[in-house]
Amino acid sequence: MIVPSGSRIAFQGERGAFSEEAAVKLLGEDIQLVPRATFEAMYSSIQDGVADYILAPIENSLAGSVHRSYDLLIAGGLQIRAEVVIPIVHNLIGVPGAVFENITQVSSHPVALAQCERFFADHPAIKKITAEDTAGSVRQVMREGDPAKAAIASRRAAEVYGGKILREHLEDHPENYTRFLLLAASGEVAENADKLSLVLHLAHKPGSLCQVLNAFAKRNLNLLKIESRPIPGTPWSYCFYLDLQASLKDANTRAALEELKGHADSVKILGCYPQAKV
Amino acid sequence: MIVPSGSRIAFQGERGAFSEEAAVKLLGEDIQLVPRATFEAMYSSIQDGVADYILAPIENSLAGSVHRSYDLLIAGGLQIRAEVVIPIVHNLIGVPGAVFENITQVSSHPVALAQCERFFADHPAIKKITAEDTAGSVRQVMREGDPAKAAIASRRAAEVYGGKILREHLEDHPENYTRFLLLAASGEVAENADKLSLVLHLAHKPGSLCQVLNAFAKRNLNLLKIESRPIPGTPWSYCFYLDLQASLKDANTRAALEELKGHADSVKILGCYPQAKV
Repeated sequence: MIVPSGSRIAFQGERGAFSEEAAVKLLGEDIQLVPRATFEAMYSSIQDGVADYILAPIENSLAGSVHRSYDLLIAGGLQIRAEVVIPIVHNLIGVPGAVFENITQVSSHPVALAQCERFFADHPAIKKITAEDTAGSVRQVMREGDPAKAAIASRRAAEVYGGKILREHLEDHPENYTRFLLLAASGEVAENADKLSLVLHLAHKPGSLCQVLNAFAKRNLNLLKIESRPIPGTPWSYCFYLDLQASLKDANTRAALEELKGHADSVKILGCYPQAKV
Repeated sequence: MIVPSGSRIAFQGERGAFSEEAAVKLLGEDIQLVPRATFEAMYSSIQDGVADYILAPIENSLAGSVHRSYDLLIAGGLQIRAEVVIPIVHNLIGVPGAVFENITQVSSHPVALAQCERFFADHPAIKKITAEDTAGSVRQVMREGDPAKAAIASRRAAEVYGGKILREHLEDHPENYTRFLLLAASGEVAENADKLSLVLHLAHKPGSLCQVLNAFAKRNLNLLKIESRPIPGTPWSYCFYLDLQASLKDANTRAALEELKGHADSVKILGCYPQAKV
């Protein structure tokens, strides 16, 4: 069990959002879900006393790393406890009596609509309607009760609002998945932790990154992700996101981190946790 | 002059989109703008004979790299000719007679609305309306002619549709900028080119990335960006995006690329072009 039974898990969005699907995949049903309207509200939920943990999106396979999430994670001093990756599967969801052939309009978030272009090209008679979010568009369809209307959202949204899934896999690109992090106020390294996430600040000079990577490479610690990000306002200094196959329980890893300190302006450990099976 | 006068420039979105703002910033007004509905339509516009160049978003400072753009760029065999970075400044745009105090509802793309949370928190009486895109919401406000309605979009959208800017800088985070690439069917290295973009495939073993970086570091070639991306379906192989301060006109750079070939499974040059001044 990753979190105690009944823990309150904050996520961004409405009930039935893809984040909720991710929370349930990682933690099961024995949790309390705390929907928060914005990224900022989600990231402050532990401090605000409304949640015990946060489940935040950090990376999408089409859109890239969510830098805003990294920023708030670093600023909030939170620690990663676990990760989960879910495929973004878009479902067409109508009211219980609806049949696909009678659907004339479909609502969802514009990003979801844009990810289902082929479906709309194949069904030119169906009108697209823009909505504020995916799950909210299902709630709205259910409230109106019109069997000609449907929404595009997660399977979870159909379950939460009692909708009927009329079609599955409307998405154009099957390799659309999002990685979420489970965040807590304090760090605690699980016995099976095998992934380490760091943020480094490095002076921008040829070779400095290489010295850092060497500290890991010579100890046979695999790099899982590396990403540089320019630091606005300080043009010759860079921030790096690193994920490694490594555990803080391992002396080898701790030695690498010690060596790192000599080469980096700052080293911030975001957490050490079990790597998700995709 | 980066492109011949009157060149046709494809971008994704409607007239007045942020991409159009970027095109005009980079190329001036003496171009023909070719709006394309989707990313796929934009990336095929040269092949389809409807455009001479493409201006595609590749990275946003909050959302990260646009992996889909990298994928289509690589698949299409296109070459980067130039880059441009624009700040994403959200403006409140009404009809010519409108005054801010009388605005009761504001429409835009949900991502734009979400980036202006503070504005809506400060003005709780103003209703948010979701629209398919930012520029399209300005066109709609102008069509309706209601002085109580406004939209959030680029300055360019106000110019294109004849709207009045009622407020500037509605965005919560001033450091929201997007980098765009000018793409052409063939490569041509400008005299002042000083930035080189590569995509590498590397075997996933400790040290392989370091060998690659060493090829550049020992020649004093600065790394501007590095990002790894897991290759779906091949779990132990990685794809890397690299940007370097280097020119293909320089023998030193060509020697580094030659050395690289020994360490990487594949090396793809996306282009060599002048680095944008932000």
